[in-house]
Amino acid sequence: MKTLRVGILGAKGYAAGEAIRLLAGHPRAEIACLMARVDSPEPIARYFPALRGLVPDIEPMDLASLAGRCDAVVLGLPHTTSQEYAPALVEAGACVVDLSADFRFDSVAAFERTYKVAHKAPALNGRFPYALPELFGDEIAGAPGLACPGCYPTATLLGLGPLARRPDRFDLDRVVVNALSGVSGAGRKSEERYSFVECAETVSAYSVGGHRHRPEIEEKLERLSGGSHRIVFTTHLLPIRRGMLATTTVPLKPGEETSGAELQSIFEEAYRGRPFVRVLPPGEQPAIAAVQGTNFCDLAVVYDAHARTAIVVTAIDNLTKGAAGQAIQAMNLRFGLEETAGLIPSGGRG
Amino acid sequence: MKTLRVGILGAKGYAAGEAIRLLAGHPRAEIACLMARVDSPEPIARYFPALRGLVPDIEPMDLASLAGRCDAVVLGLPHTTSQEYAPALVEAGACVVDLSADFRFDSVAAFERTYKVAHKAPALNGRFPYALPELFGDEIAGAPGLACPGCYPTATLLGLGPLARRPDRFDLDRVVVNALSGVSGAGRKSEERYSFVECAETVSAYSVGGHRHRPEIEEKLERLSGGSHRIVFTTHLLPIRRGMLATTTVPLKPGEETSGAELQSIFEEAYRGRPFVRVLPPGEQPAIAAVQGTNFCDLAVVYDAHARTAIVVTAIDNLTKGAAGQAIQAMNLRFGLEETAGLIPSGGRG
Amino acid sequence: MKTLRVGILGAKGYAAGEAIRLLAGHPRAEIACLMARVDSPEPIARYFPALRGLVPDIEPMDLASLAGRCDAVVLGLPHTTSQEYAPALVEAGACVVDLSADFRFDSVAAFERTYKVAHKAPALNGRFPYALPELFGDEIAGAPGLACPGCYPTATLLGLGPLARRPDRFDLDRVVVNALSGVSGAGRKSEERYSFVECAETVSAYSVGGHRHRPEIEEKLERLSGGSHRIVFTTHLLPIRRGMLATTTVPLKPGEETSGAELQSIFEEAYRGRPFVRVLPPGEQPAIAAVQGTNFCDLAVVYDAHARTAIVVTAIDNLTKGAAGQAIQAMNLRFGLEETAGLIPSGGRG
Amino acid sequence: MKTLRVGILGAKGYAAGEAIRLLAGHPRAEIACLMARVDSPEPIARYFPALRGLVPDIEPMDLASLAGRCDAVVLGLPHTTSQEYAPALVEAGACVVDLSADFRFDSVAAFERTYKVAHKAPALNGRFPYALPELFGDEIAGAPGLACPGCYPTATLLGLGPLARRPDRFDLDRVVVNALSGVSGAGRKSEERYSFVECAETVSAYSVGGHRHRPEIEEKLERLSGGSHRIVFTTHLLPIRRGMLATTTVPLKPGEETSGAELQSIFEEAYRGRPFVRVLPPGEQPAIAAVQGTNFCDLAVVYDAHARTAIVVTAIDNLTKGAAGQAIQAMNLRFGLEETAGLIPSGGRG
Repeated sequence: MKTLRVGILGAKGYAAGEAIRLLAGHPRAEIACLMARVDSPEPIARYFPALRGLVPDIEPMDLASLAGRCDAVVLGLPHTTSQEYAPALVEAGACVVDLSADFRFDSVAAFERTYKVAHKAPALNGRFPYALPELFGDEIAGAPGLACPGCYPTATLLGLGPLARRPDRFDLDRVVVNALSGVSGAGRKSEERYSFVECAETVSAYSVGGHRHRPEIEEKLERLSGGSHRIVFTTHLLPIRRGMLATTTVPLKPGEETSGAELQSIFEEAYRGRPFVRVLPPGEQPAIAAVQGTNFCDLAVVYDAHARTAIVVTAIDNLTKGAAGQAIQAMNLRFGLEETAGLIPSGGRG
Repeated sequence: MKTLRVGILGAKGYAAGEAIRLLAGHPRAEIACLMARVDSPEPIARYFPALRGLVPDIEPMDLASLAGRCDAVVLGLPHTTSQEYAPALVEAGACVVDLSADFRFDSVAAFERTYKVAHKAPALNGRFPYALPELFGDEIAGAPGLACPGCYPTATLLGLGPLARRPDRFDLDRVVVNALSGVSGAGRKSEERYSFVECAETVSAYSVGGHRHRPEIEEKLERLSGGSHRIVFTTHLLPIRRGMLATTTVPLKPGEETSGAELQSIFEEAYRGRPFVRVLPPGEQPAIAAVQGTNFCDLAVVYDAHARTAIVVTAIDNLTKGAAGQAIQAMNLRFGLEETAGLIPSGGRG
Repeated sequence: MKTLRVGILGAKGYAAGEAIRLLAGHPRAEIACLMARVDSPEPIARYFPALRGLVPDIEPMDLASLAGRCDAVVLGLPHTTSQEYAPALVEAGACVVDLSADFRFDSVAAFERTYKVAHKAPALNGRFPYALPELFGDEIAGAPGLACPGCYPTATLLGLGPLARRPDRFDLDRVVVNALSGVSGAGRKSEERYSFVECAETVSAYSVGGHRHRPEIEEKLERLSGGSHRIVFTTHLLPIRRGMLATTTVPLKPGEETSGAELQSIFEEAYRGRPFVRVLPPGEQPAIAAVQGTNFCDLAVVYDAHARTAIVVTAIDNLTKGAAGQAIQAMNLRFGLEETAGLIPSGGRG
Repeated sequence: MKTLRVGILGAKGYAAGEAIRLLAGHPRAEIACLMARVDSPEPIARYFPALRGLVPDIEPMDLASLAGRCDAVVLGLPHTTSQEYAPALVEAGACVVDLSADFRFDSVAAFERTYKVAHKAPALNGRFPYALPELFGDEIAGAPGLACPGCYPTATLLGLGPLARRPDRFDLDRVVVNALSGVSGAGRKSEERYSFVECAETVSAYSVGGHRHRPEIEEKLERLSGGSHRIVFTTHLLPIRRGMLATTTVPLKPGEETSGAELQSIFEEAYRGRPFVRVLPPGEQPAIAAVQGTNFCDLAVVYDAHARTAIVVTAIDNLTKGAAGQAIQAMNLRFGLEETAGLIPSGGRG
């Protein structure tokens, strides 16, 4: 069967680097080219020493040269830049796999309000499905492009989704999300605040009350629940390179009853057959370390009867399930490949 | 003026070690003796290499020998052991400064329910004030003993207290606390789950829905608010040695209005003149690194108008303000010394 | 072509866990069984949560049941235990891939002197080649068992080897090795000294002047150089989970001359065509992060003309190239598979 | 007795910040002013949140205003800037405590060769003693300025000094130093290579064969030994915020004999009565954690009889004993204060 040819633009960024790493081991895809803002071809080791010798050099950006070379193009570009490049790529017949926020919103207005900038490709906006396959997977097959969710929305929505579909029983107006992210979530940065000395052995909250992933989450929550709800969403920076943990609390509505066993079964049911969400057995809790470098979302749900509240904890790798891994998962589905291709080894289960 | 003579029991534990470190630099106190379960005197460096040469050896436990040698005795003992030793120490005229949970509850029944064990000194229980000076400081002077709060309750109550006193405006039945602790909070441990390999580069939640610090917090919350409230309280283990961050969300009651400026002034007012709570200016957020090794609680409050919720973030060092530092702060007040003695250097402000 | 069936004994240890992870993705091998000292079958997630759902349960040790089920058996057992099990496994026709020190020494006496214990299978000792393919690869094909090198010897010998073969030019009696290891090198441990609080944010040397990997290195150095030499070898514990860096200094002999360019070419020549040793271009230095989770050894050589000394720095992952990865590399060679099978993805190089 | 008035220039840097922290607790000194390249006064918390509220604001640089306000001025300035400011400060009667390399070399030519720049104050160069009190303390009292040693030279020379004074017995032409530094040693930086993501969970060597602290070490080694010797000196970057470990190997000369006991006594003798060098008992090894935030140098010496080599390991905090702490130690001696003032608490030893 034909090998999928994949190009990567913005190849110097951390999420793009993760896409390169994963594609280097993908059994059905090959890296057609790596491009970024460089003056002349540069070895990959300059940006990702781990990949030394394993993948092609990074070439200067040259969209014209992509035509005919790529079946899919992963965009690891800053916000609004994807909107500039996507139309021509779609026109040229390549599926756009966008890691940025540019096409994540159903509503162009919500995008513009959140990112405080005019959308440059509004006509294309409705055509890229929100590529969170476990919750919104139906529209992915054959789409002209894929809007890959943010890392916080992925971690939050996977934990919140199965309860959000039961707005009669859970009080979606009282949801509180506390999320913790490794430093790579900020991207490749030369800022003092992301220096080792400033980040190690400490934690702090940031963007309190105003993180731009909240509107993305709330828009999708509305799709899941059928109603508009406002959540409390607080993000924190962790002294780890990669990984994310979200603790989401959802109170039971007055008069309703539930149990740990019922919650467990709601989540097991919701993710039955989904290879990348591992609902942990009762009594276990997810740990970031268990999902680092993988496309898994590990999830545990506990019923806090004292406070009549469901507590859902989800762990993902912000660069994998939170970005590049989920992108490849969705790309696999888009092209009819096995969902896990290049993401879970197929051997070893003798 | 007379120097306070302080003994420390259980001198091998991390919180006791922090007390030793602080007392070694206290201008008005001296270490009268260090005792722990050892067979013969051992150099301090065996347990705290940083203190090599600075303080006396650790001696085998011998309560009888303490009589007359100590004005105060810091107990860094396991739960229920303090209840065994405290009566005789009080009898002998030494002020008991207890770092354990043994005397923290107003209600003996609540202690017994929470720690699942019978209280061994119920008669003494009511006589040790809860030594969180910023919120409950009135009873400390002259008390026969001090019940030092847990680290999570300290971080939580300092953030929650000023709002808890306004139950008409804030919805105390919808409080959600997410707290993060460094590994030293688990004590000196030889368990695999606290090994470096298992704890580094990861975070996970633990005791979800059932942490034993919740009943302690709820009991004190009732004292502050005048009503009984149930909170959601989730604890997480951080890959740092020391430090704690608590993010507490408190919704505004329906019909009420507030603003960032009002919240800021509520907290500034509440902690005016209190040397150890630093209410940060608007726009800044506390970081664990800024309080490590200090007795400060750094605090920021933000009004999330979108979700009509106050978000309070507090940072402390779990071993200092969360244990030994607060104990010395309270001991200072108990004996009429300056509150900051041995905790904030007096020089340097030329 | 036939799939290699591999069993793993001692499946709870960190090196065994790395072997399991690698074999789960090996295109030509399958995990036939996992065994360890457990009372009844246990899910892998209990020991390696990252592998949850990907590999079989861990079964109680039962050597008899292995006969006919395994072409190769990886032993992740404590020293001397491999010596107990290996004879029967060899007898049963399974290739023994031993991660322990039990068969690493050419000289049984040297093993006994170093590990202070009698060898339990001296007859088998000479029949397991020392499985460091880049330096001693000739004997691997078809061997009844493989003695996988220690992590420190791997990192040291790969750096020292090409110079050791030139004893006329380099002063092998003045070699100094300083090596740094991540904490997983100590194995899965419940000791206080390997706790997070004791290991984070610190470094110290250990086994100074007496590490048991020195005799292993010196024995192989003799094979490479043809002479007996004593090295200075100092090991240090790093606050990282995995990875190792060795800095080896080798003075030029009096009267000899060399240059950076010559040294560079000596190393490039020595490792030409070897897929797992990446000799870095002049001006670059290896970093542990670039080899974590991989079977690569990154290597740089600098000529310090001021001190007339070659400085070779090598970086490996102690669990991969330093243990399980190298074992699988050697196993591949032993069975005539591609050397990189399961270790370097074959895709992505479009 | 009169309080020493101390100004600090370059107050935004990490070493200056450590000086500020220490002076804030110094019983005999006060901070007269903090100055740095700022446009208008800025709160200290902007650069050192831990010091919030404890020390004065940072003012714009204004040397003229220092006259008469300071008895000593700590310079935390880039190399060659101290040479610009020092003459006027000395002229104005303030003792210059220079943390830079500007006056460390006895030989102006060696400075110029090493830092590749012309010295701007050669006349002053010989008048600032090299302020490593344990080895070169005689010239400090009353000096017009102090040239504070680099962090690597401090860690190395304290380990090497006692053996360097015995050139007849130890082979000083075969000394190999491997040193490891925390990231704060690079200063406050906004460079990608010092970002958390790039520095965490990794180690690499840098400036291999050419670190500029080597000429400084070799010049002082010549003062100690009476002869010119070339050392191998390799530096590595550690994933910790602060701290440094140096492993120094010094072979015994042919025909000489020694023992662990003799080496132990050489070091104990050399540092008897020196409050900041703690020679550890045989069998113990220094750890960076034990000296973090302190002015101690912990030191262990082992005799490796197999390789006939002394192995000395020293641990310091690069910002304290390696910079600001040693500066204050020397300043104390310069002004006739107790050597430990502000550096070791005087209480606690009941």
